[in-house]
Amino acid sequence: MNALLSVSDKTGIVEFARALHARGIRLLSTGGTAKLLADQGLPVTEVAEVTRFPEMLDGRVKTLHPGVHAGLLARRELPGHMAALAEQGIATIDLLVVNLYPFESTVAQADCTLAQAIENIDIGGPAMVRSAAKNWRDVGVLTDSSQYPAVLAELEAGGGLSDGLRFALAVAAFNRIAQYDAAISDYLSAVVFDAAKPFDSHVPVRVQFPGQSNAIFTKLQDLRYGENAHQQAALYSDLHPAPGALVTAEQLQGKELSYNNLADADAAWECAKSFDAAACVIVKHANPCGVALGSDALSAYRKAFQTDPTSAFGGIIAFNCRVDGAAARQLRQQFVEVLLAPDFTEEALQVLRSKANLRLLRIVLPAAGAGCNAIDAKRIGSGLLLQTADNHRLLPGDLRVVTHKQPGPEALQDLLFAWQVAKYVKSNAIVFCKDAMTVGVGAGQMSRLDSARIARVKAQHAGLTLQGTVVASDAFFPFRDGLDVLADAGAVCVIQPGGSVRDQEVIDAANERGLAMVFTGVRHFRH
Amino acid sequence: MNALLSVSDKTGIVEFARALHARGIRLLSTGGTAKLLADQGLPVTEVAEVTRFPEMLDGRVKTLHPGVHAGLLARRELPGHMAALAEQGIATIDLLVVNLYPFESTVAQADCTLAQAIENIDIGGPAMVRSAAKNWRDVGVLTDSSQYPAVLAELEAGGGLSDGLRFALAVAAFNRIAQYDAAISDYLSAVVFDAAKPFDSHVPVRVQFPGQSNAIFTKLQDLRYGENAHQQAALYSDLHPAPGALVTAEQLQGKELSYNNLADADAAWECAKSFDAAACVIVKHANPCGVALGSDALSAYRKAFQTDPTSAFGGIIAFNCRVDGAAARQLRQQFVEVLLAPDFTEEALQVLRSKANLRLLRIVLPAAGAGCNAIDAKRIGSGLLLQTADNHRLLPGDLRVVTHKQPGPEALQDLLFAWQVAKYVKSNAIVFCKDAMTVGVGAGQMSRLDSARIARVKAQHAGLTLQGTVVASDAFFPFRDGLDVLADAGAVCVIQPGGSVRDQEVIDAANERGLAMVFTGVRHFRH
Repeated sequence: MNALLSVSDKTGIVEFARALHARGIRLLSTGGTAKLLADQGLPVTEVAEVTRFPEMLDGRVKTLHPGVHAGLLARRELPGHMAALAEQGIATIDLLVVNLYPFESTVAQADCTLAQAIENIDIGGPAMVRSAAKNWRDVGVLTDSSQYPAVLAELEAGGGLSDGLRFALAVAAFNRIAQYDAAISDYLSAVVFDAAKPFDSHVPVRVQFPGQSNAIFTKLQDLRYGENAHQQAALYSDLHPAPGALVTAEQLQGKELSYNNLADADAAWECAKSFDAAACVIVKHANPCGVALGSDALSAYRKAFQTDPTSAFGGIIAFNCRVDGAAARQLRQQFVEVLLAPDFTEEALQVLRSKANLRLLRIVLPAAGAGCNAIDAKRIGSGLLLQTADNHRLLPGDLRVVTHKQPGPEALQDLLFAWQVAKYVKSNAIVFCKDAMTVGVGAGQMSRLDSARIARVKAQHAGLTLQGTVVASDAFFPFRDGLDVLADAGAVCVIQPGGSVRDQEVIDAANERGLAMVFTGVRHFRH
Repeated sequence: MNALLSVSDKTGIVEFARALHARGIRLLSTGGTAKLLADQGLPVTEVAEVTRFPEMLDGRVKTLHPGVHAGLLARRELPGHMAALAEQGIATIDLLVVNLYPFESTVAQADCTLAQAIENIDIGGPAMVRSAAKNWRDVGVLTDSSQYPAVLAELEAGGGLSDGLRFALAVAAFNRIAQYDAAISDYLSAVVFDAAKPFDSHVPVRVQFPGQSNAIFTKLQDLRYGENAHQQAALYSDLHPAPGALVTAEQLQGKELSYNNLADADAAWECAKSFDAAACVIVKHANPCGVALGSDALSAYRKAFQTDPTSAFGGIIAFNCRVDGAAARQLRQQFVEVLLAPDFTEEALQVLRSKANLRLLRIVLPAAGAGCNAIDAKRIGSGLLLQTADNHRLLPGDLRVVTHKQPGPEALQDLLFAWQVAKYVKSNAIVFCKDAMTVGVGAGQMSRLDSARIARVKAQHAGLTLQGTVVASDAFFPFRDGLDVLADAGAVCVIQPGGSVRDQEVIDAANERGLAMVFTGVRHFRH
């Protein structure tokens, strides 16, 4: 049995090769890998010896030879194939251990030249991996050091590798090759080519959106069904998920997560982790129906729940702070579908254990502003809309007071809070707040006026007053009527982007009604 | 100059080869391509002659040889590389024309065996394409017959191919390789492997959602910005868009389409094309704010507009029927962002030309139920939710009347209409309709009660009565209170999925209030 080893990432390769050698497997290798193994006292045959052909062109051509590829591709059960090998004096290669030049990490460097990127496109490696994976019935192909133990375990059991393992390795190999070629396509199709620039030293401009978008995801699990029971669904992860992103959450207890649980948990978590103070966010149907800050989980939850107890029933609740026993006892009284937090005390876990169906998720709290997707995607008919995610964070200095009346320091805090909530509410969004608590959330309306009306109606039904509240509007008011609805409802301060041709009309209305109003210069549509 | 031609798709290859030959370029080839060219009287050198190595293993190993790859990979400006070639008697290959074994179309067959799929994984072709594309500064690589004219044009102009063209061809080559390897990964990682089944004849089960999802899109255009001005965005297309899908629309006039235009146009078009009768759909903020059927575009539009004239301002309007002069004159009186239809009369085009900013899109009307995405995707934190799209179509036979009162034939028509509209309204959705026209659309609320309330408020503001209307609810009523709100508003018939543990309470309420109610057994959440 012959194994060919040629790895860029040398993690664990010496131990693996030693184990192969101990089982009587002959080691073939090239370049750096060959040298490393020989230095460790392992007998290694250079591939050039097998192919009887020298390594060429500074290593660009080493293994692209029938001596290697026929050895990988020959179907052992076909006498004609084996006779052809014998005729050419080619030995079978039964195990291939290859990982690829580090193209991805090379182009991840901002100062990567086009020449460096090109030189790190592996040619020989993918060719061998693809040959071996195609011929998986006869060849085991390893493309990652994490696969070494499973292969050794089967070899140790004797009788060679099983069909199941060889097939699984081939699938992993083609998955890896797809990732590698996707990275090359993403990079090259984003490069702005300039023939006038020196090839060896020029760092090319790359556009944000490449000519071909190659998005690759790994399946985490099939879901029971999709948004509705007649739809099938599955959850996938980025190849390299960010710490603190929803897919990294650990489920501590409860029923299996559903499609809608995951979508709502994502909305709740994105909003919760955007706050610095202890925050509680209750989401239903992708919209926050209660958001509040507090001194701890319990106080934040009590306030958030008050906003809209009707909608909170069966809600998804996210905290950006530790949930303790007191909060857990309060939460237990409500019907909650999913509960997410960075941490739970032992007491809280014990309290919540009695709610066996409650899905409990623990998730790392990333640094402020981290753990967010860089790119957002929306599927449309036979297409895709890609955009940089709305990760804008408003700073107090960005605010411009446009009315005679100035918001006081407390109102200013509430304005910033309301603005941050509005960013996570589906447009048109109108959010009334007071004392770091939402008191009326008008979401998802086709007219801004209706969002204002529904927020008011909801506050009424929840028994909350809007007197003295602040309001955030995710986009500008096209006319003064929207502002009048807010003033009628009792609002005293308004935060909105500004930028309408009728801004002056709206400012005049605010002055007339005695409101303070600030402009942010930024809009937060979210559909 | 040497060109190597080896194509699976032989479109245009003879003419292209003839043109190369006429320019004194030597033709190298293999197998079927070589035979075809020779049959056409072109002088062809077999690759085996160049490599001085026989084709092996039923063609599995033909070009995987330094005689080919060193000829592709040698950097012509490096004397060492050229000396190495000379020493081995290898000639440079300056033009590579390769397209790949038809893996994608092979696995598109439902009865494709694992053996057939595996045999159609091209090994030699991608290896050559990748070598040539890596060495694009010296080699032109063609992977599609559509590229032949541009290459011939530059050759005709003399002086060889430009850097710009060679780079563009290399990018296209790596894009194509990424697509090919993505297809292999998608297929193999969806196969349920069963070692007990005969390899040569077994048609393996494939799961709906593969272990690795490789989604590839082609950029159609950069957009001015994303959902908001501080976000960058671009529009992409599937590699093979379905006829009648939004990305296939042709823009006839008007300003550039924005991100929000496209998202709303998609929502409007998906809804409009779902109807058989002439339909008009007005969308704002991703929600239909007016939908109606009519005898023609004008009558449908008049009704749709009445639903909510406030929201319709600046709306996106889609028709599934021809827009004629009469409809165009009516439409001209309103501020419309985007207008989509399968057809416009000459008169309509002339009328609308005066609105120079109006974005006019013509789009093929596909057969009923066609042109829809099979898979829907939602981006979440470092992950993706995939689901089969909600393409369920309710048939009259699926309905179950659960009340004493039966809906009459006209009410039944309206119920089916309301149900179809509700499918395209963001959840929770409550849609009041009468005479094939929406009269109150309650969208995107966290509580079903609020959706019912907002629909009522909106009808009031539009001056429409809800007396005698029918109502669709996209999901069941958890309690009777939602139904009571509908009855209070004047509704007489209700359509909803049913399936609540309190269905009987809701049915009793409907009977008590004298309503007819039908269950669909299907839910249409859409978030």
